[in-house]
Amino acid sequence: MMEIVVQALLDKAVADARPYAEKGRLATYIPELTKANRRALGVCVVDLDGNHWRAGDFDTTFTIQSVSKVATLLYALETCGIQQVLSRIGAEQTADAFNSIIKLETRNSGKPLNPFINAGAIALIAMLMEAVGEDLLSALLDYLKTLTGNRTLSVDADVLRSERATGDINRALAYYQKGMHTFTADVTAVLDVYFHMCSLEVQVIDLARMAALIASNGRHPATGEHHFSAESARCAKVLMTTCGLYDSSGWFALEVGIPSKSGVGGGILSVVPGQFGIGVVGPSLDDKGNSIAGVELLRRLSRTQGWSLFA
Amino acid sequence: MMEIVVQALLDKAVADARPYAEKGRLATYIPELTKANRRALGVCVVDLDGNHWRAGDFDTTFTIQSVSKVATLLYALETCGIQQVLSRIGAEQTADAFNSIIKLETRNSGKPLNPFINAGAIALIAMLMEAVGEDLLSALLDYLKTLTGNRTLSVDADVLRSERATGDINRALAYYQKGMHTFTADVTAVLDVYFHMCSLEVQVIDLARMAALIASNGRHPATGEHHFSAESARCAKVLMTTCGLYDSSGWFALEVGIPSKSGVGGGILSVVPGQFGIGVVGPSLDDKGNSIAGVELLRRLSRTQGWSLFA
Amino acid sequence: MMEIVVQALLDKAVADARPYAEKGRLATYIPELTKANRRALGVCVVDLDGNHWRAGDFDTTFTIQSVSKVATLLYALETCGIQQVLSRIGAEQTADAFNSIIKLETRNSGKPLNPFINAGAIALIAMLMEAVGEDLLSALLDYLKTLTGNRTLSVDADVLRSERATGDINRALAYYQKGMHTFTADVTAVLDVYFHMCSLEVQVIDLARMAALIASNGRHPATGEHHFSAESARCAKVLMTTCGLYDSSGWFALEVGIPSKSGVGGGILSVVPGQFGIGVVGPSLDDKGNSIAGVELLRRLSRTQGWSLFA
Amino acid sequence: MMEIVVQALLDKAVADARPYAEKGRLATYIPELTKANRRALGVCVVDLDGNHWRAGDFDTTFTIQSVSKVATLLYALETCGIQQVLSRIGAEQTADAFNSIIKLETRNSGKPLNPFINAGAIALIAMLMEAVGEDLLSALLDYLKTLTGNRTLSVDADVLRSERATGDINRALAYYQKGMHTFTADVTAVLDVYFHMCSLEVQVIDLARMAALIASNGRHPATGEHHFSAESARCAKVLMTTCGLYDSSGWFALEVGIPSKSGVGGGILSVVPGQFGIGVVGPSLDDKGNSIAGVELLRRLSRTQGWSLFA
Repeated sequence: MMEIVVQALLDKAVADARPYAEKGRLATYIPELTKANRRALGVCVVDLDGNHWRAGDFDTTFTIQSVSKVATLLYALETCGIQQVLSRIGAEQTADAFNSIIKLETRNSGKPLNPFINAGAIALIAMLMEAVGEDLLSALLDYLKTLTGNRTLSVDADVLRSERATGDINRALAYYQKGMHTFTADVTAVLDVYFHMCSLEVQVIDLARMAALIASNGRHPATGEHHFSAESARCAKVLMTTCGLYDSSGWFALEVGIPSKSGVGGGILSVVPGQFGIGVVGPSLDDKGNSIAGVELLRRLSRTQGWSLFA
Repeated sequence: MMEIVVQALLDKAVADARPYAEKGRLATYIPELTKANRRALGVCVVDLDGNHWRAGDFDTTFTIQSVSKVATLLYALETCGIQQVLSRIGAEQTADAFNSIIKLETRNSGKPLNPFINAGAIALIAMLMEAVGEDLLSALLDYLKTLTGNRTLSVDADVLRSERATGDINRALAYYQKGMHTFTADVTAVLDVYFHMCSLEVQVIDLARMAALIASNGRHPATGEHHFSAESARCAKVLMTTCGLYDSSGWFALEVGIPSKSGVGGGILSVVPGQFGIGVVGPSLDDKGNSIAGVELLRRLSRTQGWSLFA
Repeated sequence: MMEIVVQALLDKAVADARPYAEKGRLATYIPELTKANRRALGVCVVDLDGNHWRAGDFDTTFTIQSVSKVATLLYALETCGIQQVLSRIGAEQTADAFNSIIKLETRNSGKPLNPFINAGAIALIAMLMEAVGEDLLSALLDYLKTLTGNRTLSVDADVLRSERATGDINRALAYYQKGMHTFTADVTAVLDVYFHMCSLEVQVIDLARMAALIASNGRHPATGEHHFSAESARCAKVLMTTCGLYDSSGWFALEVGIPSKSGVGGGILSVVPGQFGIGVVGPSLDDKGNSIAGVELLRRLSRTQGWSLFA
Repeated sequence: MMEIVVQALLDKAVADARPYAEKGRLATYIPELTKANRRALGVCVVDLDGNHWRAGDFDTTFTIQSVSKVATLLYALETCGIQQVLSRIGAEQTADAFNSIIKLETRNSGKPLNPFINAGAIALIAMLMEAVGEDLLSALLDYLKTLTGNRTLSVDADVLRSERATGDINRALAYYQKGMHTFTADVTAVLDVYFHMCSLEVQVIDLARMAALIASNGRHPATGEHHFSAESARCAKVLMTTCGLYDSSGWFALEVGIPSKSGVGGGILSVVPGQFGIGVVGPSLDDKGNSIAGVELLRRLSRTQGWSLFA
């Protein structure tokens, strides 16, 4: 694609999708998220040579929330290996809500179903805590800085405070798993990492760069360095496809078909394998917690460009 | 009943029921409980004049565990009134296990089903913590000392340590409810009271005296003092009948029909309204967590004496 | 009680409770039930000598619905014995709705929790069908005629047609249990009996006479004949207490404390052991499916007369 | 690929995967399935020009079982359109068993989660029955004959009889949905079609040919005729990826990554988009109901040939 074509494509997709923001609403579970601009919609696309294009409100700053679960997964796969990850966290989608606790009691004796529901992300961090120890948070932050190429990535202190203040369901998910012997790490330390990893401030270019690395199977376009293996990239793409958008992941696979991970901050990280990484932001959410205009923007890009894995 | 008849009755019931201990097993969820004598079986009956009869291993010391939930309920009814108790904790039995978390997600948005499952007892303590404040533990201990007439009641420090060390499912139940806004009290403080109230060392005479007070609708035989209202006594008797023996409460109502509350320490507190309070201990448990020989002992007493509410 | 006192008591209870009908609504699950008079409220009390008193709209005719499950239970206990009944149907209350199917999958491999939820009543009829054969329906009808003393008891053909037309959830409950090998009887034949047993037309005096028989442990006041054993009566009283009013049975035990069974036709059958049988009708239902004014009427009788089992 | 290379590839994959059959067991839910040869393993690959290669026990005849759900889905998409299909059946995976009934009660008021669990396939047939009428079965059979190119496709009468005789859980799933107004079609007629569609006798070449049509987006290699749209093909590929192997679909996507649908007859239909259709048979099943050696065979093909969608 020539640059001008990409830019026009993104400008049009933003313009066409932006009205969808009206149908959704801001996340309310922590007060800070309600301060976002509901009409904002921004996108960034990065190709495998590191070129990038941006459109709309691309300079919106937002918290990464569940999108960081992709980085945690990659780090866990690299640190502990896929076999250990799968022995402790499942790879199956659930039709329950992202913060549901039921299946921990009714299935697999405390083993969470996948790493992108809250229970699974907590289990992943606990597994890493047992492997890496107290330096886990700085190791994860450093890894995320590397994947995004943004060395100044930092936490939104207000959001972090809110996550801690309102995180009791996550505490329940953690203690329940600890009680079922899913992990042995200290719950408070595990949740401290979890809350930090939700509270990082990012822009769409950060998500797009991380996505482009997955699209290139872990190889950095400029340095040629491998930040994770093709195996880890494949694992991330599978789980983003099957479980990336909460309990509308199947519908998203039908409508869009691009491996993606959403967060309640309005961000979506999307991978067009071998071609592009995409970052989207749109704080107005649908009833499952996904950016409503962001999903529509991706749907339009996927349809016009044939980017669905299943096309 | 003349004294000699009662004594013979109890001696025979212990002898007949003791072999049932072989069919059960000791609670294993905390290490201290496995140290109990599996064959032990003791009983104490107290009448409304304060006379008592004892048989079997009546001098066995055991931890009160869930039997203390009766005292907590009475204290909550007296302190907050039945309307407030019922507005925050249900009165319905569940067919789930005593420490199940599912219904908190699927029913009533975090309101626990009854005060005798773990979730409900935690909610009760939280409600009291909000009403009474930091002195709750000493207030509850003092109340229990009054109800049992045992001023030397104290905590088994090893059991308390174990309860805390292994209490993660209870922590999950507490945090989940806090996250659902069932209560606002501090979870750590609430659980500290909860764990203390499970770890108290008692003998059957303590349970029997508390039961006799319920049998007399709160009026102390010697002093004539009312430790709780007839309304509170009625409420306790109802809930012991419908929910007192975990998820075999219905079967127990059929087979025995005496309002009772069991604990995994092997204790059972039973109320023959207007007649007797009974305390039983038998650490060997059935698969629901009830004293297997203790239930059999009560079944024999109920059948021979016509003590079932439903006879 | 002298006759005039009882009559005045009932008249006052009807007058005081009738306004509660405004807070409820008619059952809508079958069209015929919506034709009832929402403001109707009637009561009949029968003592153990066969005397009766009536007040309010005692001549309202209504369908028996779930109240017939008491007769089915008594017949099953007499025909198959309590051990067989308990081996095939549980005695535990559930906090799920009366027509819930979940627990058949998650607990006990298809064994229903108790005989008063739909699943359990269907299993009871299936067990009887296996024991009695094709004559079951006429045997059950004959038994119900005997218990009520009403030899002209007959089916409301419109309601029966509606039950069949709208009975798919009950069909699902039956087939699921058949599929789990809970029973082997023919599902269509079982449901035919079930639907008939819901569609019988009764008045409060019919329920009160059946209730009086339970209050007298099965012995008919006039003839002295035993229609069921004291053991069966006890079993019915226990299950009515723990499971008789759907998922507000616990609340009803607290507020009223009289063993009772309700139906969505607005009827309630209540037993004051050793004293009275009571029949109530009030078609306006609360959100659990119980007669809202009928429950209030019973609550007032229980409080003023001290009829609670737990008083 | 040259023919000899493909043949050698398949021969080796069969030889390497066959020992895995030892770890599984035959389906037992209907007696006929236990008569299969547990060690059998066969495969057929068809390219988009209609060439085919076969290895192992490719001439094993087996019943299609749940693999036919792919044909039903395609027919429904072509007949009713994707919007109507999605309005009545979801596209989300569940972590429950393929014949679970729980989610019909707890989620979406009777709308099944996806078309590949039993509840969803039944709903799909019911929707078609409403649209097509009584000729549905012959229409579906004819469609399947067209997709497989096997005009002699017929039902195994013994299996059909067994499906009907043991189909009570499926009856429960159907009646429950009817009771929740998910559909209005006649349950008996719907299930008759369902049971027929499970009982068809096939060989791996039949599955491979149907798969090749999906791989070519509906266009027949020889005739150029379009048997379904690219849109329908995409929808099938998505759902096979997310939900095709019961509750190990996510694990299969990680390990194999080829859109596939399994059946308890031991068959698997797999689509390598734009390249191949694959049919596999191996009656020895893993604990989720998937052919254990068949999955291993596909895993080896995917790894050596880079056939994963997510590679």
